[in-house]
Amino acid sequence: MSQPFHTLDDFRTLLAQAPSPDSSARAQAEARNGQLTKPPGALGRLEDLAIWYAGWRGTDRPAITAPQVVIFAGNHGITAQGVSAFPAEVTEQMVLNFRTGGAAINQLSKTFGATMTVHALSLDRPTADFTQRAAMTEADLLEALQTGWNEVNADTDLLVTGEMGIGNTTSAAAIAHALYGGAAADWTGRGTGVDDAGLANKTRVVAEAVALHGAQGDGLAALRRLGGRELAAMAGAIARARALRIPVILDGFICCAAAACLDATVPGALDHCVAGHVSAEAGHDALLAKLDKTPLLSLGLRLGEGSGAALAIGVLQAAIACHSGMSTFAEAGVADG
Amino acid sequence: MSQPFHTLDDFRTLLAQAPSPDSSARAQAEARNGQLTKPPGALGRLEDLAIWYAGWRGTDRPAITAPQVVIFAGNHGITAQGVSAFPAEVTEQMVLNFRTGGAAINQLSKTFGATMTVHALSLDRPTADFTQRAAMTEADLLEALQTGWNEVNADTDLLVTGEMGIGNTTSAAAIAHALYGGAAADWTGRGTGVDDAGLANKTRVVAEAVALHGAQGDGLAALRRLGGRELAAMAGAIARARALRIPVILDGFICCAAAACLDATVPGALDHCVAGHVSAEAGHDALLAKLDKTPLLSLGLRLGEGSGAALAIGVLQAAIACHSGMSTFAEAGVADG
Repeated sequence: MSQPFHTLDDFRTLLAQAPSPDSSARAQAEARNGQLTKPPGALGRLEDLAIWYAGWRGTDRPAITAPQVVIFAGNHGITAQGVSAFPAEVTEQMVLNFRTGGAAINQLSKTFGATMTVHALSLDRPTADFTQRAAMTEADLLEALQTGWNEVNADTDLLVTGEMGIGNTTSAAAIAHALYGGAAADWTGRGTGVDDAGLANKTRVVAEAVALHGAQGDGLAALRRLGGRELAAMAGAIARARALRIPVILDGFICCAAAACLDATVPGALDHCVAGHVSAEAGHDALLAKLDKTPLLSLGLRLGEGSGAALAIGVLQAAIACHSGMSTFAEAGVADG
Repeated sequence: MSQPFHTLDDFRTLLAQAPSPDSSARAQAEARNGQLTKPPGALGRLEDLAIWYAGWRGTDRPAITAPQVVIFAGNHGITAQGVSAFPAEVTEQMVLNFRTGGAAINQLSKTFGATMTVHALSLDRPTADFTQRAAMTEADLLEALQTGWNEVNADTDLLVTGEMGIGNTTSAAAIAHALYGGAAADWTGRGTGVDDAGLANKTRVVAEAVALHGAQGDGLAALRRLGGRELAAMAGAIARARALRIPVILDGFICCAAAACLDATVPGALDHCVAGHVSAEAGHDALLAKLDKTPLLSLGLRLGEGSGAALAIGVLQAAIACHSGMSTFAEAGVADG
């Protein structure tokens, strides 16, 4: 495809001019919801999800037929600071595992009928150690945003973005700390499972990074300075989904940190996104609160890979199946209260 | 099939002699879980579910291939007390809606590939008004337990029991109050949506019922005096699933009240059950606590029909797909931390 943006300013403009939901389809879906054979509100959050989804898809009786899971992988110079329980080589090993079908996200995608693609971003060129300098150049960031943008299938009707990148919970924590303040410890968690000493070291790294780069008011600057290629690609994919009015299920802490960079760039940029789950990673709960998103699931996952969001595909499918498939009181001849 | 129990005492004996999970399969599943390509514990509750399920199915690498949703419907004499926002005729109208595929549970069953059967239990013979006398005779109870028992397919590998019965949240509240004490108001909710005056009336009915019948230490007595045919059938189906070592996903307040009657009869009778969700119906949260079950989902549903449990089928499918389908570190050539 031809590239719709060639500079970061182009990307900002695209974000700012992104489409809104179809208020007429939404209103029609709301009316339909009130006629379905159930007591008002008895499907709880499934009803809200269906109406929200209908608005974005521009039809009062939508279907989910082509969910897509896109996984991006990147390597992080910050691993030199000993922030992960796993060696950096695991990023590439897991990419191979995704490609041969052995990872959790493969099983989850298959379970819910989603296509899954994996894109490894320059694994031989880790980002810079952001306690020393910016993780990426503007060219790096632009390229990763473009990669993510291009990975979304135009005929997808529900998107999950996932990631793999040893060291990337440190990057996500630094982004959250730079965007939202608080203390480094508020945003720093155990990731793949560092011990207490590892957590203390990681917290130090996050604090040093934000001390070096300063608090960030600009989402794209935060993404460039403290992010990683796979985070930027997720941001690009989420932005593309918005341009196509494809609803997105956000995954855990890292995905939400990437998404937060869009929200900090253009408020409302995540209106087409729902939070799939709240991760066990420290800081995710607080990050969801900053994004004003209530998670669909809370099952203690902390894997990344898009796994929590993929699990929530089933909830969206169920919501849309009920909304679009149920009979109305009139159709079924059921007394309406 | 030939009837395996002919008296309530036979049924008690079956419950007391019900099989346990296979501890060897469970241990093997636990070992497998530790070798899968993910940080330890990173799939959170999905890991516990898979190990639990493997134990019940007696294999370390199980599959879910034949989930079944069974819906039972019954009519309640207690509706004479004005406890529901919907007229009693709606029970039969909704049974027709289930049969023609128009209800929420039809869409949910289809979404997760479950077969669904509906059994209407003597809708022309409502149970007695339990503020006046016992809801059922021993013969009624036995027949409903047998109906539920016989409705479970022997080749099912995951069971959901659901219900329809105008008035049955009142029955469930009375059972919970009789079994667990507290105040009638602790267990009484709005059901299909009664207003404040309706809720006060319903609370009075629950209090009067328990004043008449007394606190119940015996689960089957509580089920007979305060239950309904569809609650008894759910209890019969849950007991049959246990006899066949088929894991069960419990639905909302009414399903859990029926299940509680088994638990009060034989402690541990629900060890093969997981709570699918916590309903918005007042009292369900407290009832789950009494049963020592942590719900998988909390999405504000309060529909019944097995809908919340059916929604959780996807979570179980995902857990088993990950457990049985993922590669081990050795298979994938991924460094193990």
